[in-house]
Amino acid sequence: MYRPRTDPRTEPEEDPIRTLRFGVNYTPRRGWFHSWQDFDPAHAREDLEQIAALGLDHVRVFHLWPLLQPNRNVIRPTAVDQLTRLVDIAGEAGLDVLVDGVQGHLSSFDFYPEWTRSWHHRNVFTDPDAIAAQADLLRTLGRALAGRPHLLGLQLGNELNNLVEHNPVTPAEVDHYLDTLLAAARDGLGERGMVTHSAYDAAWYGDDHPFTPEASARKGDLTTVHPWVFSGDCARRYGPRSPQVRHLAEYGTELAKAYAEDPARPVWVQETGAPEPHIPAADAPEFARATVRNASDCEGLWGVTWWCSHDVDRSLADFPELEYTLGLFDSAGRRKPIAEALVEAIKEPHTPRPRATALVLDCTPATRSVSGPGGEYFEEWMRWRADGVRPAVVLAERARDEGYLAARGIKEVVRPS
Amino acid sequence: MYRPRTDPRTEPEEDPIRTLRFGVNYTPRRGWFHSWQDFDPAHAREDLEQIAALGLDHVRVFHLWPLLQPNRNVIRPTAVDQLTRLVDIAGEAGLDVLVDGVQGHLSSFDFYPEWTRSWHHRNVFTDPDAIAAQADLLRTLGRALAGRPHLLGLQLGNELNNLVEHNPVTPAEVDHYLDTLLAAARDGLGERGMVTHSAYDAAWYGDDHPFTPEASARKGDLTTVHPWVFSGDCARRYGPRSPQVRHLAEYGTELAKAYAEDPARPVWVQETGAPEPHIPAADAPEFARATVRNASDCEGLWGVTWWCSHDVDRSLADFPELEYTLGLFDSAGRRKPIAEALVEAIKEPHTPRPRATALVLDCTPATRSVSGPGGEYFEEWMRWRADGVRPAVVLAERARDEGYLAARGIKEVVRPS
Repeated sequence: MYRPRTDPRTEPEEDPIRTLRFGVNYTPRRGWFHSWQDFDPAHAREDLEQIAALGLDHVRVFHLWPLLQPNRNVIRPTAVDQLTRLVDIAGEAGLDVLVDGVQGHLSSFDFYPEWTRSWHHRNVFTDPDAIAAQADLLRTLGRALAGRPHLLGLQLGNELNNLVEHNPVTPAEVDHYLDTLLAAARDGLGERGMVTHSAYDAAWYGDDHPFTPEASARKGDLTTVHPWVFSGDCARRYGPRSPQVRHLAEYGTELAKAYAEDPARPVWVQETGAPEPHIPAADAPEFARATVRNASDCEGLWGVTWWCSHDVDRSLADFPELEYTLGLFDSAGRRKPIAEALVEAIKEPHTPRPRATALVLDCTPATRSVSGPGGEYFEEWMRWRADGVRPAVVLAERARDEGYLAARGIKEVVRPS
Repeated sequence: MYRPRTDPRTEPEEDPIRTLRFGVNYTPRRGWFHSWQDFDPAHAREDLEQIAALGLDHVRVFHLWPLLQPNRNVIRPTAVDQLTRLVDIAGEAGLDVLVDGVQGHLSSFDFYPEWTRSWHHRNVFTDPDAIAAQADLLRTLGRALAGRPHLLGLQLGNELNNLVEHNPVTPAEVDHYLDTLLAAARDGLGERGMVTHSAYDAAWYGDDHPFTPEASARKGDLTTVHPWVFSGDCARRYGPRSPQVRHLAEYGTELAKAYAEDPARPVWVQETGAPEPHIPAADAPEFARATVRNASDCEGLWGVTWWCSHDVDRSLADFPELEYTLGLFDSAGRRKPIAEALVEAIKEPHTPRPRATALVLDCTPATRSVSGPGGEYFEEWMRWRADGVRPAVVLAERARDEGYLAARGIKEVVRPS
């Protein structure tokens, strides 16, 4: 169902990923996401015009669940209107927009409406009424946003699996939850625009984590990955300038492609960033350049969306230290060196090529940590990469499927030593 | 520090409780307290003018903690301004106002800012930073509200002890918390207006509950009681028309007086109401009349504040059934029979008189349930009351303190049989 940026009224749609997309996750400069409580279109416009001036082409935007749906039966028209207004302001600034619906989780804070907590505790993944309410919300957002040519689509929410810790859930229940919400989002949005979901890295690397790689790679219109260098202690383990760190987004993209059923399914590096101290500020520009360059080498990459646009102001308390310095702009609105590096990197020619050699990944949901930082498979893949091979990833169950391998351009299949 | 309704610029202040006060807890008709997210002064004015037209003289108003203080370091000026605007609208309608600061708990929902929950869990009673933040909030609200002649005062929050279940705390920690917050509220408010706190009935009747009767009766400028007929299953146990139910607010007032150190300390029946099915709708008018009449017989009563002004609209989900019908007005804004009954009752002459006979209460924090519905002391007191005696309550430790007894007008002290 995914539709590309090109205007379908005037341009053919033969190649949905012919142009790599580069954008940023929009974190409002003034008041972070609490600014929704005092939404100021002028502030949003200033931020978004800054972002567009970098040459980025899209943003991902996030509202807050308790403000959108304060009662299980109430979706606030004002909040929905503010969200659509933000989307329109972004469009006026020349940016396309993906909207994340249920937040849910943002930068270590969990935003739950009161009707899911405390005396009213409901498991947000399994309670039928809580699922129905989230479906209503996504359907409503979809309807409100539908038809905007610069709308990339509607995502269920940011890294929903961060809520697993406080809402225990099985893989089957996650699948039901995602299917229900994706259908509701599509129902609201109509045909145009993509419908997606997202998860933090435990989906890919976390043994027995209920959000599975298969759910990430097979549900929704494309696969989103959030390959953060702190996952699995990647940067601490290998060093901030290590190949493992600089090829992490590339690796995450190839890993995601392995789990897809459709060999042509795009993968979106939807979040990556340079968190201090994992990536010291001095190393951040080169990290950004390398991440973009290496990920762009992957066929099927939809694009890269940096986290995030603006540093969290230090007057706001209680964020993990790394969250204060992730912006391309500082909290006064000044461009940081990493922004310049990112701008340079996205201007380079990107020439994704097929990967002829695939390294076979043989793991189960209970052993998927082999494919994460510190895991045997991850390290083997990175050794090959350092040796100049550009390995694809192929699941063991598909290692002899000639048609599948051919569709991916894989000519050689190698089992790890 | 308590100042009466009389204007201190023109009237002497010799008798702070010479006039009984009757009011209502203000529950916005449209959108309940979620209406703060879309505050509409015209809607508030309509509600408050309806309330004033009943002949009530005050309201208690409640904001929501997550909207006031979304980050530990941020108190939203807009939210504070809206609160002061509401207070001023009430004043323009002829109503005095008590403001509750930290909600906290309202009608079964707990409103916590995200910086106290989930990955950021802090015990709101014991975490030093959480206490400091609440103190900041109360100080800020006090400053914003100070100087208004129709401001009755600033209360820490509505029934803070409803948060105990999810924030375990000891009595000593509660005392520290209340002392800190009361001092902050007073600091913000200045001299004029009362500073109080409130607790649900577990403070009076709950064995080992960390909010103690002593904290209720000795901290802050007067004692607030919330004698609900569902506490200790009072109405179910004795029947909706029983003397125990109809004298419950009176009893709660006398019980509170017993725990005070100052024999003249006023007691405010700050919440009472007619929850269905505990009080069937047909019995509600007579319950209201009896409650006002009997409580008004107590010396030292400050006043009675009904819960609540407006029924919760049934389009709002997940409230306990009884919360939908507690209003004096229905959710369309029509007066209900109970409103007429209350209006009649408050127009009656109220002639509080001393109570010559006191029944000795001998319990500890661990056995205080004897003084609640179903408890031996409660039942003995009610037997005496039914026999026509109007018993005071005196603590065992004071039963021989002649000066104290004389100050309360007690001439006879009786130990329960």
